[in-house]
Amino acid sequence: MDSGHVALLSLDLLGTLAFAVNGAMTALRYARVDIVGVLTLGMVTALGGGFIRDILIDSLPPTTFQDWRYLLTAAVGSLLAFFLGPRLERLAPTINLFDAVGLSLFAVIGTLKGLAFGLGPVQSIILGVITAAGGGTIRDIMIQRIPAVLHTELYAIPAALAAGLTVLIVESSMPSVPWVVIAALICFVLRMVGIHFDLHAPKPPHFRKDT
Amino acid sequence: MDSGHVALLSLDLLGTLAFAVNGAMTALRYARVDIVGVLTLGMVTALGGGFIRDILIDSLPPTTFQDWRYLLTAAVGSLLAFFLGPRLERLAPTINLFDAVGLSLFAVIGTLKGLAFGLGPVQSIILGVITAAGGGTIRDIMIQRIPAVLHTELYAIPAALAAGLTVLIVESSMPSVPWVVIAALICFVLRMVGIHFDLHAPKPPHFRKDT
Amino acid sequence: MDSGHVALLSLDLLGTLAFAVNGAMTALRYARVDIVGVLTLGMVTALGGGFIRDILIDSLPPTTFQDWRYLLTAAVGSLLAFFLGPRLERLAPTINLFDAVGLSLFAVIGTLKGLAFGLGPVQSIILGVITAAGGGTIRDIMIQRIPAVLHTELYAIPAALAAGLTVLIVESSMPSVPWVVIAALICFVLRMVGIHFDLHAPKPPHFRKDT
Repeated sequence: MDSGHVALLSLDLLGTLAFAVNGAMTALRYARVDIVGVLTLGMVTALGGGFIRDILIDSLPPTTFQDWRYLLTAAVGSLLAFFLGPRLERLAPTINLFDAVGLSLFAVIGTLKGLAFGLGPVQSIILGVITAAGGGTIRDIMIQRIPAVLHTELYAIPAALAAGLTVLIVESSMPSVPWVVIAALICFVLRMVGIHFDLHAPKPPHFRKDT
Repeated sequence: MDSGHVALLSLDLLGTLAFAVNGAMTALRYARVDIVGVLTLGMVTALGGGFIRDILIDSLPPTTFQDWRYLLTAAVGSLLAFFLGPRLERLAPTINLFDAVGLSLFAVIGTLKGLAFGLGPVQSIILGVITAAGGGTIRDIMIQRIPAVLHTELYAIPAALAAGLTVLIVESSMPSVPWVVIAALICFVLRMVGIHFDLHAPKPPHFRKDT
Repeated sequence: MDSGHVALLSLDLLGTLAFAVNGAMTALRYARVDIVGVLTLGMVTALGGGFIRDILIDSLPPTTFQDWRYLLTAAVGSLLAFFLGPRLERLAPTINLFDAVGLSLFAVIGTLKGLAFGLGPVQSIILGVITAAGGGTIRDIMIQRIPAVLHTELYAIPAALAAGLTVLIVESSMPSVPWVVIAALICFVLRMVGIHFDLHAPKPPHFRKDT
């Protein structure tokens, strides 16, 4: 592997770790789960989005299921949350930061994989968003919460933006490598700005405030 | 495409639109979702059943995921519900009607696809019902409601009836085209009769009224 | 089929029956479902784990979906619960016993299938646990409960133990047939001991008792 691949793999594993820690901490915060639950929910958060993507494009078994490094990273992240628990809450800003790294990378990687499998631009964007947000969605469903991505914060929108830019970059004659990094960076910055200023996706215009 | 195919495609897209509008309106009624949530839940309602069917028979990527017309129709239906919201409630009877069209068509189409992929009669009937009721089931799970199809109204039963008739028609030497239309019509009528007279599938005989 | 295959098939169908009865009874106990709901939830409990396994390893359509004997057994189990309902509660210990048979067999069979499809040891263990616990997990999600396997009793751990032993047995030069039976038996005994002494998987060390 050249250094570019090593850098990408490292970032991808870092995103996986952050997703697992974050997912497991969310599980611990909202549900009385045991070690099986924490491990399951952390791994589902980290790997679930890629699993759905790979099922939809018939790339089975899923890439991150076959590669033990992803399974190990996701398991380690979940167990960190299990054993350190509340002590990790102090690290929440750092974990949010790595989670945003994961969001950005997963969106770009998912979109690239869709395009590589011959899907159209819209389908590839959807796959990118599913890769980024699918795992957290399944986790929320499993702990009986309405998936956060459906009603709060800016999460799918930065991912969709990075996915859309990735499609534009690949379909133009621009050199991919530097430009998709910029697409990922834009997603990352928008996600961090959204967290900092507590931004949310638009609510329906006729939304009844009292419900 | 001959006129028969155009007519079928038009009806199928009409059903998809109705499923999306209905799905998005259900989401708005029961959960405080934002634009990402409405779009996701409308599209899941419209396309989710076909996705599960295509995963089970290994026809991937799912047909309606590859065909942009279905994605566009489902997205438009969801956004209509988002922007018009309560004003659409007046149209509920019309939307229910188109939803019943979708139910009938999806049940027949799903069953035909199962048979075309060499599945047995029972498996094809199950696929027809999943195609018709699967999307709404996932939507309900995502907004934290017990799926309506599991406990109220007549929804799966008309679909199963149309699916069963479709199997009989294909396995006999009857000409398919006119007869599966009749199978779909029977499902449609039973569904509308069920809505009108508030009919429900049987509850367990020992059902405790107080629980 | 030789007698060994007949014995294995019989046990597998017995496990399927127990899973369906148990799943349908759980549905009746916690949700006001109708006959469609009981049938769906019983069948999902009995067959869902194997479906996820077969999706992940791209062995589609799922084995137990193609084989009418599994569909029939699962449907019969669900309908037994529907019609007999509370009268089956007296049989709960017997049903728990057969459920533990199912758990043990499904864990071993799922792991063997993973290995046969060329997956690594860890992946095969995960598949074994998913085969055993996946159906009940989907059922719980559908009736709006946090999946039992994530927070209570010993369920995934006996399954993981049997799955791990199965991997060791296959990867060593030991004769499979007698030894995987012992792996299944260990899972069975641990599950029954867990029920009898009300054992649970470890909770997080910093678990707040009041939440």
